[in-house]
Amino acid sequence: MNAPFRLGIAGLGTVGTGVVKIVQTHGAALAAKAGRPVEIAAVSARNRSLDRGVDLSAYAWEDDATRLASREDVDCVIEVIGGSNGPAKALAEQALAAGKHVVTANKALIAHHGQELAEAAEAAGAALRFEAGVAGGIPVLKAIGEGLAANQLTRVFGVLNGTCNYILSEMETSEADYADVLAEAQRLGYAEADPSFDVGGIDAAHKLAILAALAFGTRIDFEGVVTEGIERITLADIKTARDMGYAIKLLGLARMHETGLEQRVRPCMVAETTPIGALTGVTNAVVAEGDFVGSCVFTGPGAGEGPTASAIVADVLDAARGIVTPAFGRPAANLKPAPRLQHGEEHSPYYLRFMLADRPGALAAIASALGEKGVSIHRMRQYGQGDPVPVVIETHDAHRDAIDAAVASISNLPVSQAPPVAIRIEEA
Amino acid sequence: MNAPFRLGIAGLGTVGTGVVKIVQTHGAALAAKAGRPVEIAAVSARNRSLDRGVDLSAYAWEDDATRLASREDVDCVIEVIGGSNGPAKALAEQALAAGKHVVTANKALIAHHGQELAEAAEAAGAALRFEAGVAGGIPVLKAIGEGLAANQLTRVFGVLNGTCNYILSEMETSEADYADVLAEAQRLGYAEADPSFDVGGIDAAHKLAILAALAFGTRIDFEGVVTEGIERITLADIKTARDMGYAIKLLGLARMHETGLEQRVRPCMVAETTPIGALTGVTNAVVAEGDFVGSCVFTGPGAGEGPTASAIVADVLDAARGIVTPAFGRPAANLKPAPRLQHGEEHSPYYLRFMLADRPGALAAIASALGEKGVSIHRMRQYGQGDPVPVVIETHDAHRDAIDAAVASISNLPVSQAPPVAIRIEEA
Repeated sequence: MNAPFRLGIAGLGTVGTGVVKIVQTHGAALAAKAGRPVEIAAVSARNRSLDRGVDLSAYAWEDDATRLASREDVDCVIEVIGGSNGPAKALAEQALAAGKHVVTANKALIAHHGQELAEAAEAAGAALRFEAGVAGGIPVLKAIGEGLAANQLTRVFGVLNGTCNYILSEMETSEADYADVLAEAQRLGYAEADPSFDVGGIDAAHKLAILAALAFGTRIDFEGVVTEGIERITLADIKTARDMGYAIKLLGLARMHETGLEQRVRPCMVAETTPIGALTGVTNAVVAEGDFVGSCVFTGPGAGEGPTASAIVADVLDAARGIVTPAFGRPAANLKPAPRLQHGEEHSPYYLRFMLADRPGALAAIASALGEKGVSIHRMRQYGQGDPVPVVIETHDAHRDAIDAAVASISNLPVSQAPPVAIRIEEA
Repeated sequence: MNAPFRLGIAGLGTVGTGVVKIVQTHGAALAAKAGRPVEIAAVSARNRSLDRGVDLSAYAWEDDATRLASREDVDCVIEVIGGSNGPAKALAEQALAAGKHVVTANKALIAHHGQELAEAAEAAGAALRFEAGVAGGIPVLKAIGEGLAANQLTRVFGVLNGTCNYILSEMETSEADYADVLAEAQRLGYAEADPSFDVGGIDAAHKLAILAALAFGTRIDFEGVVTEGIERITLADIKTARDMGYAIKLLGLARMHETGLEQRVRPCMVAETTPIGALTGVTNAVVAEGDFVGSCVFTGPGAGEGPTASAIVADVLDAARGIVTPAFGRPAANLKPAPRLQHGEEHSPYYLRFMLADRPGALAAIASALGEKGVSIHRMRQYGQGDPVPVVIETHDAHRDAIDAAVASISNLPVSQAPPVAIRIEEA
């Protein structure tokens, strides 16, 4: 048997503890797969006395996580501290500088510093891997970076945040309002006390930026992700969407256009019969489209102790097998900055909802304002007899700037009684 | 730039031609990903003069495919000749013996000779890869062998044959009989003139045997796959299934039990709202369940020029990057023969259809025969008022031998007017 592959685990929350459990439970199988024993040498966390339900007595303890980077008995550092800066970043940098492999679940760290860390890893001949950072237990980075590597990918999108998908699908199922479902999600542990990272789309944007860089061979550009959360989605819109055959999903989407890279996280309408439209609960799903393969869908658990630890240990196994490939699938120096697609160039069909005064000519005023901006109507529905009365329009394919202009113009009309809502309809 | 990675392609049907197209179209990207140029050195097929729509003039030509194995300018042989013996096997053996990597789409070859070929590859320090052989363009072997390698897998199953899924879903959609839909599938090119390999379940069984070996670390055992095709599925059963919330799918399933490995390809009923139940057309899907990750679903195109070539070139890229890991995820010598699960030990709920004489006591006779064999009834439906009248029963979980005994006993009752039908209900 070859020399053992020795791990230093920084962070012993649920994910770090999950990694310990896998190594302790499946030691023999991991050794058979890696061709060498996979062992934990040292661990680090803030509180040594906390009972985490696993026996840590055989491992060295470091109070300071960054000291794992300089331990001679560590070949690979597992960073599950979290945060895009501070000790997580310092540890990753120091470990790579010392020639150690780094496996992390930290999407914020990679979204912000992926390029420099990838360069550092290559300079050191070490692996930098972050499968656990995107879509939890689903091996989607491996699928896109290796399994579909023969293709020019054209579009990558999916449901990347389980909290948001739980809230949206629960609003639909139980016909409850956003605030009530969010409170329930917090009670169940699906949402944080401060949910803004999830419901505001930031978490999904971190993941999307990573997916886009890997899919298109571009420099990671988190700041280029247009991000909008689910806070303003109403039960009314969810019901209307369903009535028209759609589900509302917080979609992360990256697509390469001739004029630039489109990256956005935004609530979208998706046909309810598609794998993405039918996705309920905290499950994640990623769709990758390539020029030769067509469309593949990867679905599974997007978070949690077991799934996240599963992805980390898969990365560990690759490193233990001696597989050291560039973090984003090609040498970091070859990753090109992509121009950002301009906002107005985005185009798709849109769902528009207006609250109109119930008076003659109201609909005509809307239709004419849309026509003036070049937005054509695919179908229209009026709901109920109230005043104001909700009117929903599904447009044909339209540029975003035309939609924005039409919505601005209509919201100034006297018949418009509330700010209009515009939600993109995505072919999924 | 490093030395080029040079390919010899044996077989220039649609898949081989697809590989040529990818290499010609994406040469620069493949080189960036592999860290070295990926080039075609030589090709071989039966008919040199055939116009295949690609320019082959820059490549050496071999009339005899096995000569690719001895060419000094070939690092990796791509075997897309097909067939479990003959030139495909000879080529793979000779190429591995010469230390060349072998990438193949040939599931029959691997299902029958995977163990000896894996041993030969390891002895030579060469890669043997066959992602394209299972589920076409979906990188499911990579997902199971690498992406989920941290887990003990508990069950792997899926829709592995697009032809059968097309026929079954088309029977449901168009309410047509098996023979008519098969004829249509043949006209569309989805089914061969002799469809028996597909509709008889053999093709799916080849793929399942490969999945099982990789998932459980066992020696491949194609002969151990219990195989039943879709030829006897009737429109009546499809309609009844739908009425009860199920779809009928040809499911390949492998599960490790304490007493042995269950491997079977068989029509099953699956809840229509699950990813597998909702799968229509020629699409494939594989579900993998692991002890830490939970359940992941991989969906995509299971056949065709582009998808199959995509999978082949992904394997080529790994080999070009220098990744040489054991074909079944761990050293071939460590793959243990698994005892086969005995037929009667299988258990699940079952769908039973009886054609009963419309006379008093008929139902009671059935119910009592089931009860005698220890099969309990979950729900029962009687359809229409004809004579004989179809009666459908969904059982609770039951062992297969109890079901067989009950069915045998009922088919001997005077009230039973036609052979009963028993279809397993699988939780998917």
